[in-house]
Amino acid sequence: MDLVSADVAPLMDAISGLASGGKRLRALLGYWGWRAAGGAVLAEEPVRAGVALELFQSAALIHDDIIDRSDTRRGAPSVHERFAALHEASGWGLDAERFGHAAAILTGDLCLSFSEEAFTAVGPAAGPATTARRIFNTMRAEVMAGQYLDILEEVAGRTRPREDAVVRARNVIRYKSAKYSMEHPLAIGGALAGADEALLAAYSAFSLPLGEAFQLRDDVLGVFGDPQTTGKPAGDDLREGKRTVLVALALDAADGAAGATLESGLGREDLGIDDVDRLRDIISTTGALNAVEGLIDELSGRAFAALARLHLDVDVRAALEALGLAAVRRAA
Amino acid sequence: MDLVSADVAPLMDAISGLASGGKRLRALLGYWGWRAAGGAVLAEEPVRAGVALELFQSAALIHDDIIDRSDTRRGAPSVHERFAALHEASGWGLDAERFGHAAAILTGDLCLSFSEEAFTAVGPAAGPATTARRIFNTMRAEVMAGQYLDILEEVAGRTRPREDAVVRARNVIRYKSAKYSMEHPLAIGGALAGADEALLAAYSAFSLPLGEAFQLRDDVLGVFGDPQTTGKPAGDDLREGKRTVLVALALDAADGAAGATLESGLGREDLGIDDVDRLRDIISTTGALNAVEGLIDELSGRAFAALARLHLDVDVRAALEALGLAAVRRAA
Repeated sequence: MDLVSADVAPLMDAISGLASGGKRLRALLGYWGWRAAGGAVLAEEPVRAGVALELFQSAALIHDDIIDRSDTRRGAPSVHERFAALHEASGWGLDAERFGHAAAILTGDLCLSFSEEAFTAVGPAAGPATTARRIFNTMRAEVMAGQYLDILEEVAGRTRPREDAVVRARNVIRYKSAKYSMEHPLAIGGALAGADEALLAAYSAFSLPLGEAFQLRDDVLGVFGDPQTTGKPAGDDLREGKRTVLVALALDAADGAAGATLESGLGREDLGIDDVDRLRDIISTTGALNAVEGLIDELSGRAFAALARLHLDVDVRAALEALGLAAVRRAA
Repeated sequence: MDLVSADVAPLMDAISGLASGGKRLRALLGYWGWRAAGGAVLAEEPVRAGVALELFQSAALIHDDIIDRSDTRRGAPSVHERFAALHEASGWGLDAERFGHAAAILTGDLCLSFSEEAFTAVGPAAGPATTARRIFNTMRAEVMAGQYLDILEEVAGRTRPREDAVVRARNVIRYKSAKYSMEHPLAIGGALAGADEALLAAYSAFSLPLGEAFQLRDDVLGVFGDPQTTGKPAGDDLREGKRTVLVALALDAADGAAGATLESGLGREDLGIDDVDRLRDIISTTGALNAVEGLIDELSGRAFAALARLHLDVDVRAALEALGLAAVRRAA
């Protein structure tokens, strides 16, 4: 890439800036999935697969932030905002926002290529027709499908049956997050170490409910989280009009006036702090917040029970327990 | 994907709609690159590689049309326009255009994954650390870098030294198009059949100048092309503010008043037919159109001379000649 032009450096900087942060949850799950299936403590395969998973996540975040019009990511400007700022600081012509979006689309695409390069570099265990490659491919397709269902629900949600809204929101969670962020990374690590279908199914009994709980925690933070710790503006999910399980439950339980206020506030980009507070009140008062916390507890319980049934070395068990607790109890 | 949700069908429809059209130039170059290196007439590798190249091109077009705000592609609505139309026809809420862009970003990402799946399915000849895989990776990174240089020139061009504008425009062409559309597809086919570096260099002596001529023809069509045959609106490149070699030469040669008119018209989305005609006149009058036609002739001449030096079976030579002529003489 150096040979193309020095002008391309901002794309590489954006990728390395983003990929050097974050919790590296997926890479860690991949590593412990490898270990849980008997993989060696020190090995190249899970590390390379972890790089691929984290680069894929970086690419998904870059494109997701364009889609959600998120200005910040991990406490710093999102990639499209970085390019818009570069445009403004350089005194260039035409539209800074549009340039930012275009440059971020290309940066995300470049990052997707790098992710795949890293996955192929894992070697024969990730070659064509291997289980690990099949899961990697499924993961990529399912997360895009899940993200589409998410934005579809944002625009189409109010025209669809309200009684199915929670089911639809849980389907989004399943594909966009639980399978993508938990089930597939753990399974890829396991498959690289030779895990059979029975072991991968036992992994899923842990990782799928954990992943759902993880995303439900994310949904709570998206409405009630502290911008200081989340690195995102207060009530961001409300402004984006995300029809999460939390919101679906609140709409279901709210009386006429409160329901109308909530419905009309969703997706309004100009929501101020007072508006966010009013919508937060409605969501708490309906009992939706308590219901989601209960659901997180129930799913976490199922996940940890499944973890207990796995035959694991003591250090592998401790690592997966710590990752699981961090996922559902986090504040950011 | 069927299992995720029936709601995801429009993404698959958009991909198959786009991938079923087009000239399949890259797939054909891959096949003849394979044959030119002694590959068998009937073989799976070049076909699978061709699928990968065409799916990659479909993904690039989906994202490119968002970046360029192109409403049509191959005579049909572009993918983001398809989703915006679906939004409007369904009576959904929030913003149709924004939904269209978001859905098209995700559809392009999905298509990138499918492209890579197809390339990996080529088998061992495209495995890790093979020449074919290296070229495929280089191709993906370079085209994204080239596209970024293209949009950078749109916004930054008028702030940069005018005397370097033609050099910058030719660098964009090289990465965004000549290497991507011609050199790399031909080389991937050759590498799959075992071509050595000397043979690949001989391929490049043909494919690189041909690819430059191909893109210069594209630039001429982007300003002077007939919407009936190109499937794109008249003067689309002017409206997008593309600073092509054609435009750079015109700006360089135009006198003060004509130069100012051209400069101020570039990138104006509201350019009407009369405005486009006026800018076309300026570009012709400066001699830039003739100069580009001369450059196309010169590059084509170099390409066909290099083709003549390759040792090829008569049918392979005929196919590459036909592809080359179609690339530089086309009207769409």
